[in-house]
Amino acid sequence: MLPKQHTWFTEPYQSEGVAISWTIESHLGHEMTDYQTIDVYKTTHWGNLMVIDGYVMLTTRDNFLYHEMLTHPALFSHPNPKNVLIIGGGDCGTLKEVLAHESVAQCTQVEIDEKVTRLAEKFFPELCERNDDPRATLLFDDGLAHIKSLPPESVDVIIIDSTDPIGPAEGLFGPEFVKDCYAALGPGGIMVQQSESPLLHLALIEGIKKNMDDAGFSDTATLGFPQPCYPSGWWSATMAVKGGTLAPPNEARFNKAKLTTRYYNPAIHSGALATQLGPVTR
Amino acid sequence: MLPKQHTWFTEPYQSEGVAISWTIESHLGHEMTDYQTIDVYKTTHWGNLMVIDGYVMLTTRDNFLYHEMLTHPALFSHPNPKNVLIIGGGDCGTLKEVLAHESVAQCTQVEIDEKVTRLAEKFFPELCERNDDPRATLLFDDGLAHIKSLPPESVDVIIIDSTDPIGPAEGLFGPEFVKDCYAALGPGGIMVQQSESPLLHLALIEGIKKNMDDAGFSDTATLGFPQPCYPSGWWSATMAVKGGTLAPPNEARFNKAKLTTRYYNPAIHSGALATQLGPVTR
Repeated sequence: MLPKQHTWFTEPYQSEGVAISWTIESHLGHEMTDYQTIDVYKTTHWGNLMVIDGYVMLTTRDNFLYHEMLTHPALFSHPNPKNVLIIGGGDCGTLKEVLAHESVAQCTQVEIDEKVTRLAEKFFPELCERNDDPRATLLFDDGLAHIKSLPPESVDVIIIDSTDPIGPAEGLFGPEFVKDCYAALGPGGIMVQQSESPLLHLALIEGIKKNMDDAGFSDTATLGFPQPCYPSGWWSATMAVKGGTLAPPNEARFNKAKLTTRYYNPAIHSGALATQLGPVTR
Repeated sequence: MLPKQHTWFTEPYQSEGVAISWTIESHLGHEMTDYQTIDVYKTTHWGNLMVIDGYVMLTTRDNFLYHEMLTHPALFSHPNPKNVLIIGGGDCGTLKEVLAHESVAQCTQVEIDEKVTRLAEKFFPELCERNDDPRATLLFDDGLAHIKSLPPESVDVIIIDSTDPIGPAEGLFGPEFVKDCYAALGPGGIMVQQSESPLLHLALIEGIKKNMDDAGFSDTATLGFPQPCYPSGWWSATMAVKGGTLAPPNEARFNKAKLTTRYYNPAIHSGALATQLGPVTR
């Protein structure tokens, strides 16, 4: 039983028999858009909480884990990332981390639902503080169509910062989209996709890796990291490289980048690359 | 709201404004002991769930993370661990991981509450499968008194596999106990303690490290890892060495040990050692 003296927001994840709940102080915003229903709550201990169609997207307190781990391993796996594309990512937290890299000349964020970004600007302003960076372009458009419109080999890193593989994001987990990403990436290009929980979603992760292999990517890896607000609290990003193998993190390059991070560092990156998908007998 | 078509077990963690819930099929066991109240539930998706005084201790599905990360970094940080002591650990999952190391000649588990082990034997038999190993000694006694009874420098590794720092385990987080551990360890000895969440319990972790420093340990580190069934899903172990610095994991020695693991490997170990306690500006 949830204690009755509080108001709780609960995300039940019935297909895996778990739920996470937060105590709520107030309901800050509610939008029904052409794509989905978005709610923002003020919590007692986790800052603000954004929910889309009943699924928790982020909280103020713990989103640094996801945004750092979706961004920095991918950018440090490319020798010199200049042009970066984000598909989804409407809360702008990934954009902020990308623009922390001085090497990046240009970053385009293609979010299908403008309301996600408008609510983030209001309720997660710290994630949007680089939205006015002259290197940033915010488009509100369909990621599937956008990727097809790009000239071949025009992007260095593509980050798929999507919702779960149901609803508007479903196509972002399909083989055709991954092939389009491959075509848009230059040699040595990196694609990274949020890939759900290493404990709960192994079949999905294997499917993402297969799509990447089938599209022609030459190496893939699934990087695990803690993410309290998502089911199981253990999440992943799956990364692929166009040609060669995924480079290990480079300590000197990381130090030169002078990033402020709460979770990411090169040893964390190496450890995440070593995430096992199931038991290993040696 | 938790969907009413299921029966849920909920652990509310009100001081941090979160709760985790599991869907339950049946209540397998209930014991009121001299120390605490123990319940075991059968869940729909997580195997069995053990709860002490309302706090979740473990589930069948995810305990491998905690048990591997409490054991293997500590044992691989000692050059040749022969005598290992576990304080707490009544579910025997840590004992099982310790005995997977062939170097270990003797492992004593000192659990205050025999009923925890009896319930584990019944409902978590896979964790108890090495309880009959001739190298294992299971004592049901007070860990605080036991550690004082040991000859100086008689133990190589001490693992504090305790409940939260309230109730019976409170003394295990105090400075005197840590000093007693220091005295019982030989040169190069390793102490490791479960140290709660790197997101929620930073002050507690700093307190543990201070106790270790004050006791005379020469190096400490807090290792983070995912642990879905505990608040925030992100947990930690804090380790200390008696003399010198904590050794990084050794790939060759790990390979020779031929462990079967689901999470632990040397790169994960290095990554865990690099866990940041808060933001780092470079």
